Amino acid sequence: MKIIKKPYKLTARIKAIKKNGKTVGFVPTMGSLHEGHISLIKKARKENEIVVLSIFVNPTQFGPKEDYKKYPRNFSRDKAIAKKAGVDIVFAPSAENMYPEGVSTCVEETNLSKILEGAIRPGHFKGVTTVVLKLFNIVQPDISYFGQKDYQQAVIIKKMVKDLNLDTNIKVLPTVREKDSLALSSRNIYLNQEERKSATILCHSLTSAKKLIENGLTNTEEVKKKIRTMIKKEKISGIDYIEIRELETLQPVKKITGKVVILLAVRIGKVRLLDNMIIK
Amino acid sequence: MKIIKKPYKLTARIKAIKKNGKTVGFVPTMGSLHEGHISLIKKARKENEIVVLSIFVNPTQFGPKEDYKKYPRNFSRDKAIAKKAGVDIVFAPSAENMYPEGVSTCVEETNLSKILEGAIRPGHFKGVTTVVLKLFNIVQPDISYFGQKDYQQAVIIKKMVKDLNLDTNIKVLPTVREKDSLALSSRNIYLNQEERKSATILCHSLTSAKKLIENGLTNTEEVKKKIRTMIKKEKISGIDYIEIRELETLQPVKKITGKVVILLAVRIGKVRLLDNMIIK
Repeated sequence: MKIIKKPYKLTARIKAIKKNGKTVGFVPTMGSLHEGHISLIKKARKENEIVVLSIFVNPTQFGPKEDYKKYPRNFSRDKAIAKKAGVDIVFAPSAENMYPEGVSTCVEETNLSKILEGAIRPGHFKGVTTVVLKLFNIVQPDISYFGQKDYQQAVIIKKMVKDLNLDTNIKVLPTVREKDSLALSSRNIYLNQEERKSATILCHSLTSAKKLIENGLTNTEEVKKKIRTMIKKEKISGIDYIEIRELETLQPVKKITGKVVILLAVRIGKVRLLDNMIIK
Repeated sequence: MKIIKKPYKLTARIKAIKKNGKTVGFVPTMGSLHEGHISLIKKARKENEIVVLSIFVNPTQFGPKEDYKKYPRNFSRDKAIAKKAGVDIVFAPSAENMYPEGVSTCVEETNLSKILEGAIRPGHFKGVTTVVLKLFNIVQPDISYFGQKDYQQAVIIKKMVKDLNLDTNIKVLPTVREKDSLALSSRNIYLNQEERKSATILCHSLTSAKKLIENGLTNTEEVKKKIRTMIKKEKISGIDYIEIRELETLQPVKKITGKVVILLAVRIGKVRLLDNMIIK
């Protein structure tokens, strides 16, 4: 497994790989790898000749009051996990390499990025689309792998790829969960024991909502109310949103007749937790 | 020479070309081809195995009061010129093909794009960078060719390429001029006979300024004043700007000690004319 830190070095390497006609699978991450990331790497390993993993805690997607500085970082541990999972190249640039002084170009999705997470974290998705496009340009992936856990992010990246005529595929893989159903997230380590217990309410309430809908409940307001009631029974700091939306446009749905996604953002202790479920 | 109108068809074609290891030279234009464009095509022809010319009057770079609708279009003439100059593929998409309903992603350079032309034409360069990135993604050029006549545009595109880690080369070729020195532009046809005569003042004043600087004048304000005086002797509608700037940052220069670019935007009749000269 090769570790590359400079963008231009990876560009050169990828050029050689592409010249040999090899396919490149790409897993972009902020490191602090867990089973969710590993599932993406393993899928990439199966479907491509070369697997590139990026580890980059992207400063531009964090708000000024967010946890950029204390975001968990453990490069040696990540390297070991990546190697074991079958990564060929780890791309781990510094912030200075990705954003040299005077950088002034950004990529923005101007519609889907303003709602839900985008409304609560202004500028977040602009940071995400900009860094992901930069990474795509460096890695030139045939297929890139994202987790469904960050559902809105995946939808926005797919939109960017379409809008900017990028010739690359995006695959979104199912959320990986702990045994008790909590969606894996690098930020789960911030939860204390009690909060960790309460956190299972996100997935449990989604599963209950799914059952209600499968049993014929179609009024989204009623479904949302049920979820809210369930979540409020736990010791939480607050609910940012409970939304039922169309899968691609993320527009609100009044009556559930086709596929929808239920999206949750709940604060427990000082941690914001996201979860979602697609209802078919 | 092949004419391709759908982006996905060109993507497929380019993929096949790249698979054969061939290099692609790209000349993006808004059609209405003149000797300036032809010089770009000929250079591309010399330096690449495949030459792609795009002809697309990009709606998003025109302001609401600008000449998008009446911008000169002559596809049959352009095709003949392209063929003669040695183009392999003409890419001529419709606005609907480039911007399908619901398109919501843009690329913006946020610094250089706000001054000079950007200050007068808000949103212009956002339209330019977005369409150029889309075209780059479709055409996958090894080298792209731009004219120096739109100096600021070329600087911004080079900045975008660097900032977004695009693995492509940008070449900027000298402005092609009429015998009497007027810089070629598709909009010159809007000038009546008298205006056409006055229009030569742009290049003449630049040449005079160059001589003044070569003879030791270093105070930019004085140089600008001399240019202004010369231009004002002609029958013009107004001067948008006369600026002396650093080559890459486009920042103002007080005293001319190294390379600079003099940039002019002058309105003659109803036509805005641009010209510039690099002083070494």
